[in-house]
Amino acid sequence: RDSTPGDAWYGVAHGCTRKLGMKICGFLQKNNSLDEKSRMVGSFKESAKNQMCDNSERFTRAETDFSNLFARDLLPAKNGEEPTIQFLLEVVEILTNYVRKTFDRSTKVLDFHHPHQLLEGMEGFNLELSDQPESLEQILVDCRDTLNYCHPRFFNQLSSGLDIIGLAGEWLTSTANTNMFTYEIAPVFVLMEQLTLKKMREIIGWPNGDGDGLFSPGGAISNMYSVMVARYKYFPEVKTKGMSAAPQLVFSRKHLAHVCIFFFLFSVCFLQSHYSIKKAGAVLGFGKENVILLKTDERGRVIPADLEAKIIDAKQKGYVPLFVNATAGTTVYGAFDPINDIADICEKYNLWLHVDGAWGGGLLMSRKHRHKLSGIERANSVTWNPHKMMGVPLQCSAILVREKGILQGCNSMCAGYLFQPDKQYDVNYDTGDKAIQCGRHVDIFKFWLMWKAKGTIGFEQHIDRCLEISEYLYNKIKNREGYEMVFEGQPQHSNVCFWYIPPSLRGMPDGDERREKLHRVAPKIKAMMMECGTTMVGYQPQGDKVNFFRMVVSNHAVTKSDIDFLIDELERLGHDV
Amino acid sequence: RDSTPGDAWYGVAHGCTRKLGMKICGFLQKNNSLDEKSRMVGSFKESAKNQMCDNSERFTRAETDFSNLFARDLLPAKNGEEPTIQFLLEVVEILTNYVRKTFDRSTKVLDFHHPHQLLEGMEGFNLELSDQPESLEQILVDCRDTLNYCHPRFFNQLSSGLDIIGLAGEWLTSTANTNMFTYEIAPVFVLMEQLTLKKMREIIGWPNGDGDGLFSPGGAISNMYSVMVARYKYFPEVKTKGMSAAPQLVFSRKHLAHVCIFFFLFSVCFLQSHYSIKKAGAVLGFGKENVILLKTDERGRVIPADLEAKIIDAKQKGYVPLFVNATAGTTVYGAFDPINDIADICEKYNLWLHVDGAWGGGLLMSRKHRHKLSGIERANSVTWNPHKMMGVPLQCSAILVREKGILQGCNSMCAGYLFQPDKQYDVNYDTGDKAIQCGRHVDIFKFWLMWKAKGTIGFEQHIDRCLEISEYLYNKIKNREGYEMVFEGQPQHSNVCFWYIPPSLRGMPDGDERREKLHRVAPKIKAMMMECGTTMVGYQPQGDKVNFFRMVVSNHAVTKSDIDFLIDELERLGHDV
Repeated sequence: RDSTPGDAWYGVAHGCTRKLGMKICGFLQKNNSLDEKSRMVGSFKESAKNQMCDNSERFTRAETDFSNLFARDLLPAKNGEEPTIQFLLEVVEILTNYVRKTFDRSTKVLDFHHPHQLLEGMEGFNLELSDQPESLEQILVDCRDTLNYCHPRFFNQLSSGLDIIGLAGEWLTSTANTNMFTYEIAPVFVLMEQLTLKKMREIIGWPNGDGDGLFSPGGAISNMYSVMVARYKYFPEVKTKGMSAAPQLVFSRKHLAHVCIFFFLFSVCFLQSHYSIKKAGAVLGFGKENVILLKTDERGRVIPADLEAKIIDAKQKGYVPLFVNATAGTTVYGAFDPINDIADICEKYNLWLHVDGAWGGGLLMSRKHRHKLSGIERANSVTWNPHKMMGVPLQCSAILVREKGILQGCNSMCAGYLFQPDKQYDVNYDTGDKAIQCGRHVDIFKFWLMWKAKGTIGFEQHIDRCLEISEYLYNKIKNREGYEMVFEGQPQHSNVCFWYIPPSLRGMPDGDERREKLHRVAPKIKAMMMECGTTMVGYQPQGDKVNFFRMVVSNHAVTKSDIDFLIDELERLGHDV
Repeated sequence: RDSTPGDAWYGVAHGCTRKLGMKICGFLQKNNSLDEKSRMVGSFKESAKNQMCDNSERFTRAETDFSNLFARDLLPAKNGEEPTIQFLLEVVEILTNYVRKTFDRSTKVLDFHHPHQLLEGMEGFNLELSDQPESLEQILVDCRDTLNYCHPRFFNQLSSGLDIIGLAGEWLTSTANTNMFTYEIAPVFVLMEQLTLKKMREIIGWPNGDGDGLFSPGGAISNMYSVMVARYKYFPEVKTKGMSAAPQLVFSRKHLAHVCIFFFLFSVCFLQSHYSIKKAGAVLGFGKENVILLKTDERGRVIPADLEAKIIDAKQKGYVPLFVNATAGTTVYGAFDPINDIADICEKYNLWLHVDGAWGGGLLMSRKHRHKLSGIERANSVTWNPHKMMGVPLQCSAILVREKGILQGCNSMCAGYLFQPDKQYDVNYDTGDKAIQCGRHVDIFKFWLMWKAKGTIGFEQHIDRCLEISEYLYNKIKNREGYEMVFEGQPQHSNVCFWYIPPSLRGMPDGDERREKLHRVAPKIKAMMMECGTTMVGYQPQGDKVNFFRMVVSNHAVTKSDIDFLIDELERLGHDV
């Protein structure tokens, strides 16, 4: 059971010779032959030549005085082409300098300013909006100022690091300026989304990559989709009649319509899993009280026996369990719930199994690490955010559903004035009515382009490298003086959770005083880091554990020497705390 | 009552001398004095100079052979800086050529291909993803191919037109690559959002611009926020206990928990208002049956007496009315509901009033047209999408709420591990827990930058111009042979709805045969337009009205001669239908 059908996705091209009983069609990749490649490159050169003769030109920078130019002088204004191109090139100059700075280790990570400082106007940077237009020269100053107060490097967040191909993809997306509403307004992007979602489903291990899916504006919304679809599957009449159509079971007078959503969470709080499912419970009308939290082991993984006990208990009390969320990569610990054990229970009790792989889904791309998600092919739905572990620029989150057509059934409102059935092409490509949004931002292109540019193998290398760097950190501090790990053993994901114990606390016996003091250490060190602007790592408390640092690595620019530097900084700043 | 408090927002700077009893503080704009301006420009030159001496350089294009370069050779790779900059410049070349083409009237609007054609690979353009990386040369080909199959000009959609400043803003946003989660990771953007939302609330006319708000991933989500907040206001316990905590009233055995959401909609279908509120009703657990549709007049505006009658009727049946949606600018007709009359009824029955100004909200920026939204300051919440009528690139939608703190109350889950209360700055600036999303894309910067570059007055000109162009179309066709208007009188928004009657149908008496034939005219003409690629305009049926064309103007590049051309094309293509 440790090998999932999806293990086949790397196929023979990479020498993976494992034989599987199940055939995954259309999943192995045809490699472009050299012939094909040179043909394509040849046609590029030719088309570039044609373009030169055609209406396209290689741009030339020209000194331009922007002080007397305004937005109204740009395209579509008459004679607006030259100032437009020059203005965009000037912006690109600012942006490329920022890109340089992002990767320049001699610059500060950040230059922290308090809100009131920025609001009062730092160094002439005025955030206020005015009735009259500013000159393009001032607009360029505004752009530069804005970037000055952005933070090029920040280790703390799950999505960090600037991927150049992804960046180019975003620039192109905004230039194309369309949306994912219908095929006719975004033909290529709609097809790219379809192909990419299919590929992701193949990697999950669903036969033939069949199923459904969408890119949504983030993991929280993707998780919300999963709860909605589950509700629609079990109680389709809720769509028309509302939650009153869900089973009405006598539990107490105040509880008439109870459908439980189950979580894999810590017993007394919801810290261990992502808060977005609890939020979805509240938003969708289940109520957060009806979200039942589960016990986890000390490494943050759900305990399947506790799930089963809680299901039995809930049923006895007259609740109808509906939805189980297994987390693949929790936000703080990076823990992977045992999906196969959970899937067994879900099958036994006929519950919807959702795998929230927003943070950990990326590990599916790695032959070395994907075993941590064993069983994911048994899920009914999966959230997977390429904008986290795979380095794709924000936003890029997918909700993937095993049953085809259910997203449409759940969300369609048949708005005939938006989705005309009598168009001259196959309107099954119009995805708008599947979504809870109307217009949908094009999130696919940057991801598709990165996949083209890196290949599947490039994502694998990215993931393996990030986990290797975090393993380096773990190995370096696990027995080092002044460090305590929050949980024992090697982390499953790139999350490394630890306390730094300053010399003043090292001899102190455990107890309330030490705990209180230790609780204040991480915030103090982080504040100093922000003031210095050298590096930055986040912290949080969790359950009964006082504030601890949590380092995650998802940025492909992070090196072992950054880790060494981080440790040096921690110890330098934390020495006298 | 026709003048709303928000009428003051343009203030003395523009010679608007209207006196109002209510003082709007902080709303009038200080104009930068000339002195200040020259100081800023001076500091730009200086800072530009400093940057030159500093770590920034003016870029130089260099002939680069990308055929042996791959994504892995770009930053953060060693010596990756030069290829990175050259690659980005090459991308910019492709993009600026596309920008040129977008505004070039000699190019086709679109080059339509069916899904299967694109999937089979047009002219070597291969959408499939591979295991192995492609060279950067091929990636550039992919970028060019992608844009070849995008549609530069398309009249049909509410959001169209490419604003150069907005485009620059999007490029910068993706380069900054952060999100709106907390102040510390996006300090400038968080403040820009706050200032801009306040300004929008001032323009709505809420005293001092007080209240709350967020940018969300589109109008449908913004509308969903409004329903959530209303539910939380009237039945806060739904958040914890679920929809069973809403009033349980005996209506019939199958209807235990009824809360009605009221709409301003056509009596038998939901065509007249936006389908997103109905969707929100289904998503949030109300059920779409509990969304009551209202009668509209022949121009698509709700009839207040019908609203009151339906409220009384619903109450008698034991329902609890909760939420009324007034649309400011319906999708098809561009109709504005009479907000003041509706507000009177909402106050009388204590109902939440939401104004869906996704499409029409932009008219608030125009002194000439804002009277159409009179009464909007009495709303409890407002949806306003700058990405529609104001020409801001997608996505840019705001939900604005009059009561401060209610978004936080409704959505917060107090996820301590994400939003640490013990940071060294004022954590009220961390907006993450107000949103249903976790990470939120930075939608504000492009809008803020456009506002800086155009000034409030520039948006006003944009709106006035779009409405003037659509008035030109209306005047041109209203009495022209071969045209029938869908409703009488001048449209309130830029929507012009009409039938084109081909010569073959002109003599035919009204009846089923003519209706059936007329129904097929618009799809045929649109399909021909797409094949020719010259221009494009959308159509839809509505209620008992057969397919008609709906032209909307939101693109500032549309001119009167485009309208003339459209009419010529319609008549040329439609002549023999």
